[in-house]
Amino acid sequence: MPVLTMSGIDKSTLLWYLIKELRYKNVHVLTFNYKQRNVKEIEHAKLVVEHARENLNAEIEHKIVDITGIHELIARGALTGNEEIPVGFYTDEIQKVTIVPNRNMILLAIAVGYAIKVKTKKVFHAAHKSDYAIYPDCRKEFVKALDTAVYLATIFEPVEVKAPFVDMTKVKVVKLGLKLGVPYELTWSCYKGGERPCLKCPTCLERTEAFLLKNISDEEWKRAVEIYEKFKRLTS
Amino acid sequence: MPVLTMSGIDKSTLLWYLIKELRYKNVHVLTFNYKQRNVKEIEHAKLVVEHARENLNAEIEHKIVDITGIHELIARGALTGNEEIPVGFYTDEIQKVTIVPNRNMILLAIAVGYAIKVKTKKVFHAAHKSDYAIYPDCRKEFVKALDTAVYLATIFEPVEVKAPFVDMTKVKVVKLGLKLGVPYELTWSCYKGGERPCLKCPTCLERTEAFLLKNISDEEWKRAVEIYEKFKRLTS
Repeated sequence: MPVLTMSGIDKSTLLWYLIKELRYKNVHVLTFNYKQRNVKEIEHAKLVVEHARENLNAEIEHKIVDITGIHELIARGALTGNEEIPVGFYTDEIQKVTIVPNRNMILLAIAVGYAIKVKTKKVFHAAHKSDYAIYPDCRKEFVKALDTAVYLATIFEPVEVKAPFVDMTKVKVVKLGLKLGVPYELTWSCYKGGERPCLKCPTCLERTEAFLLKNISDEEWKRAVEIYEKFKRLTS
Repeated sequence: MPVLTMSGIDKSTLLWYLIKELRYKNVHVLTFNYKQRNVKEIEHAKLVVEHARENLNAEIEHKIVDITGIHELIARGALTGNEEIPVGFYTDEIQKVTIVPNRNMILLAIAVGYAIKVKTKKVFHAAHKSDYAIYPDCRKEFVKALDTAVYLATIFEPVEVKAPFVDMTKVKVVKLGLKLGVPYELTWSCYKGGERPCLKCPTCLERTEAFLLKNISDEEWKRAVEIYEKFKRLTS
């Protein structure tokens, strides 16, 4: 009965990985509404979970958690505020604009509280290694330190924080997901809240790159293009 | 410009300590509304901050942060839910009922996000050592582990988590506060949301004990009784 937080590509892959590879039969999924500009990701998270319920052999409980009060306190930058969405690939500077300060620790701390409440022992974090997405709270050393802090905070009935993709690039995550049958056409990554993905913001570019540009087999290429076309139709 | 989370005795003492002993001239104070039963503690936190503004030489910014969405997700037990308030001193069993799972990590993670936003470098946690209040997330080893995780999550501009009272008992915290002139008559501890403190729940007993029962001087005793009488009048 692990708990994970979810919205886009990485977290959808994690859900399939937990059920198909790790063979979990019960999964709790948390999606946070922190008033992010791409609130569409919440609707897409619901579609992904619905698809998982219909196609995978597991019980999935899905909660949407309202943390908009935290938004009002700490929002800055493009993910939640009114600043311009940056255009182009991730750089250090763009990341400083797009991050919600300390977002992953906040979401994981809440997920740990929920894990204690529902008496489960593991919280999964979909952090992955990427050439561009160098958020410090996606790094292995952060995950290990947080796992220790969580262990000490929950010492009577310890909870663990796991990040199985922490040594994988985005491309490897997508390759794994294609193998597991993740319905990427249902996921949403774009930072903009438009009807269709903008295909210009850092996360759109990272997505396109992960699907289309790197060293993948013809078979994988075909499936990736097919998914991308479906996704564009779905959102047009 | 430190950030601290506050409501009752320990956090009020921390505010005076930061300004009078550590000589901070700017302090950000966060009080969380997690729909706790003793929502009165929020009103009392405002009174305490007001008193500090009038009597101490510092700029104090005070934010009330609504995290009731988290309550709906993880609440269990007497602090936030509908269970009976336990009566008597703290025991392991009573603590398991009264805690909001992982509360301190959640509140500190949010405070760290806020520290990043307002460009300050330190977050203060009022955890103290106590014979009864053995919450694992008030222990020194937790504070150290969380400080490391926070450092790694904020590595571009590191934030520190400090807990100056972590080796002090409640009685020592109160003795320090009496010396610093903390207006304890304005603070609120009782778990029940009544007009007056119940004087029976674990936190009322801990408070009474800290003020009245332990090894303190006649002078301190006099001041403590005076405060307690004022407090009872204020809340009657």
